Amino acid sequence: MQAHHEDTIAALSTAPGIAALAVVRLTGDRAIGIVDEVFRGRKLADQPSHTAHVGHIVRDGQMIDEVVVTLFKAPRSFTREDVVEISCHGSPVVIKEILQLLLAHGARLAKAGEFTRRAFLNGRLDLAQAEAVADLIHAETANARQAAVNQMRGGFSGEIRKLREELIHFASLIELELDFGEEDVEFAGREDLRKLILKLQQHLHPLIESFDKGNVIRNGVPVVIAGKPNAGKSTLLNRLLNEERAIVSDIPGTTRDFIEDEITLGGIHFRFVDTAGLRDTSDTIEAIGVQRTKEKIIQAAVVLYLFDLSGTTIEEIAAQELELASYSQPVIRIGNKVDAASPALLRQLDGRYLLMSASRGENLQALKDRLVQLFDAEVRPSDVLVTNVRHYQALKETHAALARSLDGLDRGITGDFLAMDIRQALHYLGEITGEITTEDLLDNIFSKFCIGK
Amino acid sequence: MQAHHEDTIAALSTAPGIAALAVVRLTGDRAIGIVDEVFRGRKLADQPSHTAHVGHIVRDGQMIDEVVVTLFKAPRSFTREDVVEISCHGSPVVIKEILQLLLAHGARLAKAGEFTRRAFLNGRLDLAQAEAVADLIHAETANARQAAVNQMRGGFSGEIRKLREELIHFASLIELELDFGEEDVEFAGREDLRKLILKLQQHLHPLIESFDKGNVIRNGVPVVIAGKPNAGKSTLLNRLLNEERAIVSDIPGTTRDFIEDEITLGGIHFRFVDTAGLRDTSDTIEAIGVQRTKEKIIQAAVVLYLFDLSGTTIEEIAAQELELASYSQPVIRIGNKVDAASPALLRQLDGRYLLMSASRGENLQALKDRLVQLFDAEVRPSDVLVTNVRHYQALKETHAALARSLDGLDRGITGDFLAMDIRQALHYLGEITGEITTEDLLDNIFSKFCIGK
Repeated sequence: MQAHHEDTIAALSTAPGIAALAVVRLTGDRAIGIVDEVFRGRKLADQPSHTAHVGHIVRDGQMIDEVVVTLFKAPRSFTREDVVEISCHGSPVVIKEILQLLLAHGARLAKAGEFTRRAFLNGRLDLAQAEAVADLIHAETANARQAAVNQMRGGFSGEIRKLREELIHFASLIELELDFGEEDVEFAGREDLRKLILKLQQHLHPLIESFDKGNVIRNGVPVVIAGKPNAGKSTLLNRLLNEERAIVSDIPGTTRDFIEDEITLGGIHFRFVDTAGLRDTSDTIEAIGVQRTKEKIIQAAVVLYLFDLSGTTIEEIAAQELELASYSQPVIRIGNKVDAASPALLRQLDGRYLLMSASRGENLQALKDRLVQLFDAEVRPSDVLVTNVRHYQALKETHAALARSLDGLDRGITGDFLAMDIRQALHYLGEITGEITTEDLLDNIFSKFCIGK
Repeated sequence: MQAHHEDTIAALSTAPGIAALAVVRLTGDRAIGIVDEVFRGRKLADQPSHTAHVGHIVRDGQMIDEVVVTLFKAPRSFTREDVVEISCHGSPVVIKEILQLLLAHGARLAKAGEFTRRAFLNGRLDLAQAEAVADLIHAETANARQAAVNQMRGGFSGEIRKLREELIHFASLIELELDFGEEDVEFAGREDLRKLILKLQQHLHPLIESFDKGNVIRNGVPVVIAGKPNAGKSTLLNRLLNEERAIVSDIPGTTRDFIEDEITLGGIHFRFVDTAGLRDTSDTIEAIGVQRTKEKIIQAAVVLYLFDLSGTTIEEIAAQELELASYSQPVIRIGNKVDAASPALLRQLDGRYLLMSASRGENLQALKDRLVQLFDAEVRPSDVLVTNVRHYQALKETHAALARSLDGLDRGITGDFLAMDIRQALHYLGEITGEITTEDLLDNIFSKFCIGK
């Protein structure tokens, strides 16, 4: 693990665009020295850490901008190196000129995620925490933000590290046995090992299970709208999408582009599955389309099933109920087109079906409340939650290696085979927090970060 | 002039979007108190100004984000009020949650330009300097940036203030005369006043003249491409535009959307006038189109006149030369399609025409060099430069009022009429730097700012 960096890197750390402020950030041995060369104000090298200084960035005697420079001296910084933040006016021209000037004085442009990578390499964050930083930045809902913040705080990492340490203790005992070779001593009690592995499995299981929840928090709750043709499926979808978008009261400057077919209700992200198809094939549903829809339904966490109540009878409704048996997910039964339904039918369904008129937006709020209520508990991020595919896979691999060693214990295999499985389990656990890592793995992780992070 | 504000305002001050960092800024009496309520770390009220503090923004015991808070205590801040900057992760969700939390604790969302408006009202900047801040943020070239920075530093304001003070001295003497009413005393020597006004006019003149240069720096050098149909005008334009865009080596994160028909060469912004028409009407130029083009040409600072050299003679070229007499601007004569020209013709034109092939990009660089060389001196921002239409108009009004008073002096008008003209001149000069101002004027100026500035 590399702990020291020769070069000093610089990047724009705030979003590009015209704004009041922008922050250009440097990290590295020469961060303060380089800025001192272009900054007219106090001599930064003489100033204490965590102080802000007003002055000018100057090139060839000409002021480029009036700025505030903030110092974070090693090791009291995000990267544990000297960090300087230059807060300048948010003009693309100013940003560019300042960056060019810093490069001319010996800094180099930071690569994506390079600040966080250094924070990791210098021991400020472990790998899971570093990944949480990226998750936080890309969080699309308050719940996703909370899950990322929890992971950033290290609860998950702590759990993994604890499991790993317990296993390391046993692993070293087994390695000791191997050193003694033929002497047939047993430092690691087989019964104790079995108990430990079972205990570890018990801890791993809920973590692996939590991935589904984490996935829902990150990517949204998958929802399917089902029902016979002309039941009003696309009308309902459009109502939900448009109404939420219209009432989103975004604070200026924080609006985001809406992803098609996603809405946020009560802080929960709902993602309508295969809704493009829903709209295209509402008239002519072909066999292949139906098959595709069925596959999509399997992925859904909830089904909104629409019954067309217009000019129909309770017997016809009952017949349709049979179709619902195929869903393993929770189903919200919606009686649509209440305005064209017989009063007798409405009386019979009332209290059991959510009665509404999608086209008129009637009772839409009741549907939204039901959706939020169904998933509210499920998406509140708990302290330890697996949201990352890489972590999920490493946990499953760990679980498999431990299962193999347990199986080996049962079959009375020799210490060297046992050691192999346990080493593998340790390897996968270590990959999560970055105790075991490769350049490729790091490249892969940090290349997905923003530049300037 | 209001010097104290009851309410505390907050806004995102960096550009919206996903990024490593974002800065949420507050100013006002309760800025520090409000942040202290939501910040877990050191108690900010007890910390010295210009210090940065790592901690958490917390709502209902749950951490929203890990942040760095920087304090600028009154009067040592941009607004001369207490200012707090919260540097959080650049996630739209985080920004929104933090802003909502601050609003819940008593801050109000800042209006466009409200930070700078307070800086002005609290005497940190005069009005011309405040306007320069907006110009700086929107600067599209290094020269425009430099002109804005110069104005922000107050050179222009100082000049205006000096002129105004000299005039105020005389104005007070004349007002004194008016107080004495019928007594026919003359405190203000008429000959001295005439000399002063002439001197002021001498100072105003170059400022007013500098507006054309300022305009070019702000909006770019207007260029017209002219020539007979099929001379290659649109080919040349496309070459210039595409080549520059391709070689612009933007530092990541600082790219900007290109405005159609603008390029930057050697730090100078060139704007091609009426080039849309150029492309549309290259085949069928109607009378009305020709007229429109002629009007546009008047606005141009330079004309690129293309001669089609393919299969033509020196006599035909000479005949076309007559057309150039109608241009009052500098004309760059371009001999295009050199690859299809007779060697004899090329020999005759060499050294006098810029010979090139627009379609093959041959000698394009020579044309660019010529353009930069023509305008290089003209667009280097001098220390005092009028770039703002409002200032330009106020200067012209001042000039006119002084001209009237000079005329009055010649005609021997009475002190009260003289005083009226001089008061007007003082009024217009005072409006530039904001010594004289109205709410409407301020609303008009600051509404054009970004939110968060």
